[in-house]
Amino acid sequence: MEEAVAGEPLERKLSALEELIQSPGHLRVNVQGAFIADEISWLDGTRHDISDIRLPRHTSVVSHVALDIGGSLAKLVYFSREPNSKELGGRLSFVKFETDRINQCFEFIKQLKSKQTALNGSKPNELVIIATGGGAFKYYDEMKAILGLEVLREDEMECLIMGLDFFITEIPQEVFTYSEADPMPFQQPRTDIYPYLLVNIGSGVSMIKVSGPRQYERIGGTSLGGGTLWGLLSLMTGARTFDDMLALADKGDNTKVDMLVGDIYGSDYSKIGLATNVIASSFGKVFRKKREGEKAAEDGNGMSNGDRADVEGNDKLDLAFAPEDISLSLLYTVSNNIGQIAYLFSEKHQLENIYFGGSFIRGHRQTINSLTFAVKFWSGGKKKAFFLRHEGYLGSVGAFLKRQPKNWGRRNSFEERFGS
Amino acid sequence: MEEAVAGEPLERKLSALEELIQSPGHLRVNVQGAFIADEISWLDGTRHDISDIRLPRHTSVVSHVALDIGGSLAKLVYFSREPNSKELGGRLSFVKFETDRINQCFEFIKQLKSKQTALNGSKPNELVIIATGGGAFKYYDEMKAILGLEVLREDEMECLIMGLDFFITEIPQEVFTYSEADPMPFQQPRTDIYPYLLVNIGSGVSMIKVSGPRQYERIGGTSLGGGTLWGLLSLMTGARTFDDMLALADKGDNTKVDMLVGDIYGSDYSKIGLATNVIASSFGKVFRKKREGEKAAEDGNGMSNGDRADVEGNDKLDLAFAPEDISLSLLYTVSNNIGQIAYLFSEKHQLENIYFGGSFIRGHRQTINSLTFAVKFWSGGKKKAFFLRHEGYLGSVGAFLKRQPKNWGRRNSFEERFGS
Repeated sequence: MEEAVAGEPLERKLSALEELIQSPGHLRVNVQGAFIADEISWLDGTRHDISDIRLPRHTSVVSHVALDIGGSLAKLVYFSREPNSKELGGRLSFVKFETDRINQCFEFIKQLKSKQTALNGSKPNELVIIATGGGAFKYYDEMKAILGLEVLREDEMECLIMGLDFFITEIPQEVFTYSEADPMPFQQPRTDIYPYLLVNIGSGVSMIKVSGPRQYERIGGTSLGGGTLWGLLSLMTGARTFDDMLALADKGDNTKVDMLVGDIYGSDYSKIGLATNVIASSFGKVFRKKREGEKAAEDGNGMSNGDRADVEGNDKLDLAFAPEDISLSLLYTVSNNIGQIAYLFSEKHQLENIYFGGSFIRGHRQTINSLTFAVKFWSGGKKKAFFLRHEGYLGSVGAFLKRQPKNWGRRNSFEERFGS
Repeated sequence: MEEAVAGEPLERKLSALEELIQSPGHLRVNVQGAFIADEISWLDGTRHDISDIRLPRHTSVVSHVALDIGGSLAKLVYFSREPNSKELGGRLSFVKFETDRINQCFEFIKQLKSKQTALNGSKPNELVIIATGGGAFKYYDEMKAILGLEVLREDEMECLIMGLDFFITEIPQEVFTYSEADPMPFQQPRTDIYPYLLVNIGSGVSMIKVSGPRQYERIGGTSLGGGTLWGLLSLMTGARTFDDMLALADKGDNTKVDMLVGDIYGSDYSKIGLATNVIASSFGKVFRKKREGEKAAEDGNGMSNGDRADVEGNDKLDLAFAPEDISLSLLYTVSNNIGQIAYLFSEKHQLENIYFGGSFIRGHRQTINSLTFAVKFWSGGKKKAFFLRHEGYLGSVGAFLKRQPKNWGRRNSFEERFGS
């Protein structure tokens, strides 16, 4: 990595000393020279690299972890000193848990708590949880009781944009665009970032217009988000995890279930500018095919409409649609829809750059491709879709960094942008 | 009805004579004094009244029927003289068929053909089919061969807006808005209709900006339309017909499957202006509940992810979600989404009035309510959602009326608006 540790050892030690004498409430996270620790790996079309971020210049005690508890996932960010004592600095690590198994998350934090001295040089009981997301409210009492630690809550949207700003401005090889020719051309860290639209895709989708430091507004959103995809796919396919569903989608052919323009017209309907392979109706082939099959298979087995979903009995009638095809179609449906609505809100608010964050994306190539395509298609190539390697951790990183003191940084600091 | 037949019998007979001497290619459909023949009936929350439209002043021979063949449904409009010979004029009747069973439609037209003399005073072989929609291309050769009749094709969007203009400007008690207090306040026929947005919801959704007579542009659309709802519901519930699905939705509770803001936050997140009962994630509760249930029920029965959708085996694990709840949630998902995108396109093009047409709506109260709510919510009450009793027949009525001669009407005629 080009951005390795630089500067005089003595200078760094003095700097560390200075950091150490800060009050615990004024922790300083030195993000200078931060970089992503590991190489990128694409596996089966999906990026598997929620890599640590190295903070080579940060040496002071860090006595907090940050936790963003969403509707489906809880995202944790914590700091640890480099275990190799020859290196100064430390690293940010990223872990996620299912919100329904939030106790696993609390158990993990308990372990971090017990190891604080080794990890950070602080005492276990000094650990503070900076919590954000809906669960920061919902699980507040439980969290405090189980962990026996102080819990500070931070506003979700503020954390999201602080986290995003950090990734955009400070971390090389973090932000990228997508094209089939070059799947991950990285953007250099930049400072001229405003205004932009943040589309945060979790269980649902929030769209936030960011005009400047701490100038933001939730301008829209849609309830068709990750929760919709995972929920419907868990009803319709045998897949039990997000990754299983994405793996299915990778093998799917959506034209088996989607109705294309060509299926309706038989040829291009050039007058409205739609090519035959454009999806006219997502899942538009299912109803007709299913009825055809049922008609053929009907033998008076007495099924009635009042039956519950689980006795629907596809197996008996052999009318199955492949879970691969269903998965890809639904992935396209949800992604295209988010991309289109993001475009429309960006158009309404005259925003050219759209950053897609949130746990839904999971570095999945087809998802990223689909969001990129929708923005490009609807904007006629005028608007740009950006993605992040740590897309799911905007809120938790933002919460982690919100404990910045006023005097922390030199170049292009959060302080300049966010104030205290 | 206040708009009953008026005028002198002699005058009408002369008018009829005048019409009869028109060349067959210049049929005149006299729409003066047109009205809907039957009363409105709401049954189980759904309007069941695709009523005839009486044309009391039309007396000449009508030798054409109009057929709009979409991806899922084919919509037929035909004219017949009043069987009661004491009344002059006639009526337009409306019938729909599944596109997959297009032969049933052709069979029906064959019967109309054989009865032409009684119905209209023309000869069977003089009957002409005016066809529009994608199927006008796809089934063109088949239609001609099977029916042994001339088939003329008309542009789909032109027919849609001609049909809509006819309904808005000529038919009393056709166009209505929706509110819970008064579910169907009708709009009087009006002439100051431009510009407006037509959102036509069939299998997919087309959004057409109409600026004036024959001035229209397809400005957007979405693949999440009726086909998506019917397709996904036929995969997930036991329902086999559209009406069965809507009946299920009427009994559903979407909060069993949707994740509300309150489910995430535990209380109002007032800072972003979202109340606890707002849907944060459609189907957002499904994945978590299903996993919980599976975890409990897991007993090593060896299901793998590669299994097809039909062996998903919900019944074995007793993790069923009620088809009623699924149906209502998906109805909301699709309707809200269409309403939101319609609002965003209307905003982009500065259109205040949004007319929702297409076979998806089916006079279903919850669908209409949901579309109305979305437009109202997103526009802050500034934009209006309009609906039509003959919502599914815009294209076929437009095709039927396109055979207007130049000289047909007096007041506010199509001729003034559309030219020849």
